[in-house]
Amino acid sequence: MANDQQPLTKEAILDAAEQVLRRYGPEKTSVVDVAKVLQVSHGTLYRHFPSKSALREAVTERWLLGLASSLQEIANQTEGQARDRLRLWLDTLVVFKRNYVLEDPEMFSMYRSVTQEAVKLIQDHVHQLIQQITQIVDAGVKTQEFHVDASEDAARAIFLATSRFHHPAHAPEWLDSTNAADFERVWQLVLKGIS
Amino acid sequence: MANDQQPLTKEAILDAAEQVLRRYGPEKTSVVDVAKVLQVSHGTLYRHFPSKSALREAVTERWLLGLASSLQEIANQTEGQARDRLRLWLDTLVVFKRNYVLEDPEMFSMYRSVTQEAVKLIQDHVHQLIQQITQIVDAGVKTQEFHVDASEDAARAIFLATSRFHHPAHAPEWLDSTNAADFERVWQLVLKGIS
Repeated sequence: MANDQQPLTKEAILDAAEQVLRRYGPEKTSVVDVAKVLQVSHGTLYRHFPSKSALREAVTERWLLGLASSLQEIANQTEGQARDRLRLWLDTLVVFKRNYVLEDPEMFSMYRSVTQEAVKLIQDHVHQLIQQITQIVDAGVKTQEFHVDASEDAARAIFLATSRFHHPAHAPEWLDSTNAADFERVWQLVLKGIS
Repeated sequence: MANDQQPLTKEAILDAAEQVLRRYGPEKTSVVDVAKVLQVSHGTLYRHFPSKSALREAVTERWLLGLASSLQEIANQTEGQARDRLRLWLDTLVVFKRNYVLEDPEMFSMYRSVTQEAVKLIQDHVHQLIQQITQIVDAGVKTQEFHVDASEDAARAIFLATSRFHHPAHAPEWLDSTNAADFERVWQLVLKGIS
């Protein structure tokens, strides 16, 4: 916990905010609750996060950055085939989202409502993910595994064509018994579409 | 309007229900309102539709059957190339949904909430649409335009890969300035994936 001797870092605030959001639920958490956990005045915390929605947005942003960072590591790999890397990248995204819904539905629901309002935040995130797919597609074009006219257009098409499995609006369908087989069907179509 | 001399057909009830739903909005419409328009007792109407939700479901079912019927006509065509037919089929579905959101957002929202609850209704509808795509894919396989291992799997993959453009959960995104170009990107990917 922070006190007047230790600087109040953004990370420490977001850790506390996440802890409180999990304990009380996104609807009931206030900036004052987070200040209490950090043992600072709420005035101090309001200087960093002027509103409850700023706090929720910052926690969501950190969640998205963490996901993008794990996926970037996959996109950066240079060993093996590009098709295996693309599959691993998609699997990681799909499994991450699905597990979150199953294991932490309340936080997932908060992330979802924040991303519906914070348009710029989600645009940047999607842009970042499409750049990562572009990186993998480019690598596959170089090794002649993939044949596409424009890697970034193909990457955007791949991201959109797999929306059913990672876009949060489809979360209820991720529990369908056909979900895994459906993903495999779409993957085969996508793979043939860029090969 | 019906009276005691004319039989009260299901079509007449649904016409009246749709008229009342449009006038008062889906939230405020009751079975009694519909009975008034038809000039029958609400007891008579309750024998056909025991609840407001049965009425809403029947109106939605008719809407879905109308859409599926227009699409079936396209799937049944035998002139020209299968790829053009598949594109026309998808365009028709995508444009129908998008125009509905723009022109009749309140009814669209009702259809959406009904289809979220009436699982069997939407399952049957999706099954029917995938059968239509299968019919087009089969025709293309016969003329060697398409090359797929199993037409029905390919058809399901095509339906799922284009969810972004016809699944009602994505309705807010259909107004994005990139929507038409995004559809084109996914179409190119899908077409190459079955060619």
